[in-house]
Amino acid sequence: MNAEIIAVGSELLLGQIVNTNAKFIAEHLAEIGVDVYYQTVVGDNPGRLEEAIKTAEARADLLIFTGGLGPTKDDLTKETIAFHIGKKLVTDEVAMRSIKQFFARTKRNMTENNKKQALVIEGSKVLPNDHGMAPGMFAKQGNHYYMLLPGPPHEMEPMFINYGSPAIQEELETIERIESRVLRFFGIGESQLETEVQHIIDSQSNPTVAPLASEGEVTLRITAKHESAEIANKMIDEKEKEILQIVGQYFYGYNETTLMEALLKKLSEKQLTLACAESLTAGMFESEMAAIQGVSTMLKGGIVVYSNEAKMKLANVKKETLDQYGAVSKECAIELAENVRRLLSADIGISFTGVAGPDSLEGHPPGTVWIGITVKGKETGAHLLELAGSRNNVRRRTVKYGCYYLLQMLGK
Amino acid sequence: MNAEIIAVGSELLLGQIVNTNAKFIAEHLAEIGVDVYYQTVVGDNPGRLEEAIKTAEARADLLIFTGGLGPTKDDLTKETIAFHIGKKLVTDEVAMRSIKQFFARTKRNMTENNKKQALVIEGSKVLPNDHGMAPGMFAKQGNHYYMLLPGPPHEMEPMFINYGSPAIQEELETIERIESRVLRFFGIGESQLETEVQHIIDSQSNPTVAPLASEGEVTLRITAKHESAEIANKMIDEKEKEILQIVGQYFYGYNETTLMEALLKKLSEKQLTLACAESLTAGMFESEMAAIQGVSTMLKGGIVVYSNEAKMKLANVKKETLDQYGAVSKECAIELAENVRRLLSADIGISFTGVAGPDSLEGHPPGTVWIGITVKGKETGAHLLELAGSRNNVRRRTVKYGCYYLLQMLGK
Repeated sequence: MNAEIIAVGSELLLGQIVNTNAKFIAEHLAEIGVDVYYQTVVGDNPGRLEEAIKTAEARADLLIFTGGLGPTKDDLTKETIAFHIGKKLVTDEVAMRSIKQFFARTKRNMTENNKKQALVIEGSKVLPNDHGMAPGMFAKQGNHYYMLLPGPPHEMEPMFINYGSPAIQEELETIERIESRVLRFFGIGESQLETEVQHIIDSQSNPTVAPLASEGEVTLRITAKHESAEIANKMIDEKEKEILQIVGQYFYGYNETTLMEALLKKLSEKQLTLACAESLTAGMFESEMAAIQGVSTMLKGGIVVYSNEAKMKLANVKKETLDQYGAVSKECAIELAENVRRLLSADIGISFTGVAGPDSLEGHPPGTVWIGITVKGKETGAHLLELAGSRNNVRRRTVKYGCYYLLQMLGK
Repeated sequence: MNAEIIAVGSELLLGQIVNTNAKFIAEHLAEIGVDVYYQTVVGDNPGRLEEAIKTAEARADLLIFTGGLGPTKDDLTKETIAFHIGKKLVTDEVAMRSIKQFFARTKRNMTENNKKQALVIEGSKVLPNDHGMAPGMFAKQGNHYYMLLPGPPHEMEPMFINYGSPAIQEELETIERIESRVLRFFGIGESQLETEVQHIIDSQSNPTVAPLASEGEVTLRITAKHESAEIANKMIDEKEKEILQIVGQYFYGYNETTLMEALLKKLSEKQLTLACAESLTAGMFESEMAAIQGVSTMLKGGIVVYSNEAKMKLANVKKETLDQYGAVSKECAIELAENVRRLLSADIGISFTGVAGPDSLEGHPPGTVWIGITVKGKETGAHLLELAGSRNNVRRRTVKYGCYYLLQMLGK
């Protein structure tokens, strides 16, 4: 069975809201093994909606609609579908009762057009709305299934999970489970990663392996199909092992894990504290760290040394260092990291100094960055980055490299 | 002219990411008077992509594609479109040069599949990619226009604004110009602003006035239509005057101006320097300041005093202050602001100390924030915020209030 998701609403076409419903439904259809080949957005216009229905019927077995079930004049989804498949709309007494109860509870008086919300396609399975008034519907006509869901995500999402998805699964002959796992990599480009694991990606069958890139990070999604979720996951384990044997040194986490989360996990495991000195990042590293709850046991604090004056006043960087090597130098980076570490008696000190751009600095092109890392009584080192991209792209990726180098070190 | 937006990418069909590109493009097409009747999402599959193209050609004049311009094997958008409209792909030397420069600069070795990114549809207008490698394209064939944009939003959005939208506007025959201007407000709620200017909003004709809210900020978009852009802008000027007479004290800037940009403008006008002490924001204020180019003359630097230890060690906050009043207090906020100002001999010192949440601190509920502001030889003061919302929502709005209070003071 394959499905098309059709979101109905002029506010989507006008770009007033993002179509999160399509993502939510697609994600959960994948879990139960239903393929989605197309998603469509159409406005509150019966003619164009019916055109979208015809187009979808030609290429999908299951049509899932969101939106247009409300009480107002421009809510026409179920009217249009009922007309298209030649069915009447009938009042659903259960829905009518809950609508009346809703108005009684909220002490508002019920207007005529609210009764419209209790109308359902005759012969359809009614999907209760536990968080609103408009019920959903699941109808079958000829070779096609039609599922109607409300537009507001807080109504649609629980309805789909609790009633919509189970209704679909009942219709599926064999429920083939689809399991998937995302491997996250950093420090390697998308094209290079793909080149390295090309032979694995090319053996596209089951499991499949798909690369995806976003700002310096690359992910590989491994997806396996099998009647047994357990076996599907075993298949994924094996594929993962195969991949990590080749590019394991760039791997840092699974699924939605961020580099910063992976770093904080390591720091708390090892009960280590951190102090930071930030020049071009100007606080971004610490701010992203503090975005995660429970960081206070690991983040001592730090300094933002945007000017050379601040580097000397706040981090006691020697004037000679700045005169001889400049602010964008390994020497400055290490002094910054070690001095801020001592200043706050932290276990680890990290510093970021470089050229965000667009102008060069001290003869270094934009994207030239030194990351200094010092550890109490242990190693001292610095990493040179030569990044391309806009000012803030450079700054954001510098923060990610900071997490990455700390992770590499703590991994030892 | 009406357009269809076609997003290409299996990660969309699998529900791994939300289609924010469609919203962004639709929103900006609406501004230039281009109607969107349908949006489509299709996977990295040439056959199904070509079907989507045929469907779109039957119902739209302009087809805008996002995604599938990358270096990997499953990036097939331009190949499929070129084949469909019977055009060859040719290497764009400008794009090739910038790709080679990118790899030279980043000292990474350029794999063969990267050259693929320099291929463009012959005879098309090439849209430069200022934030990545894959260029965009704008082609005309028969009665249809085809615009190809990259998938990553940080590449697509600036490309569409700077090159895509202008290219479309050149092709629009419409004599009627649509001009619009956004007025930005802070420190007033959406519903209150709406109440105050309701009579103006209700006189919906030409120009129209539409409110929009986002994280503590409210905007009013004034849109006017006229054959002459000059007259349209005059109409907007008058409507703006009307509005600012009522809520002018909350107005801080036009269009995409951020509070931080407005603040930096003021600081540079008055040639003032700033030093910051950040506790709950942990560097976010300074990082957002440094996101804007040319800030180095205004931002001296600062300290991230996430722990009380850091407050004492880095900002010499008196132990008695912390014992007697606590870290979340007017007294601590003012000491932080004044001490960091002196430390860096800046004109203005600002501090942020409070409870980001989710847990309370020192008996204060999440959202309790003190912002301290001191000015060399001038006033000293602190503002108390009592914000609702999540941890990072509180932190982001705290940064905005910091800009707002500094702007209010500098406005004097």
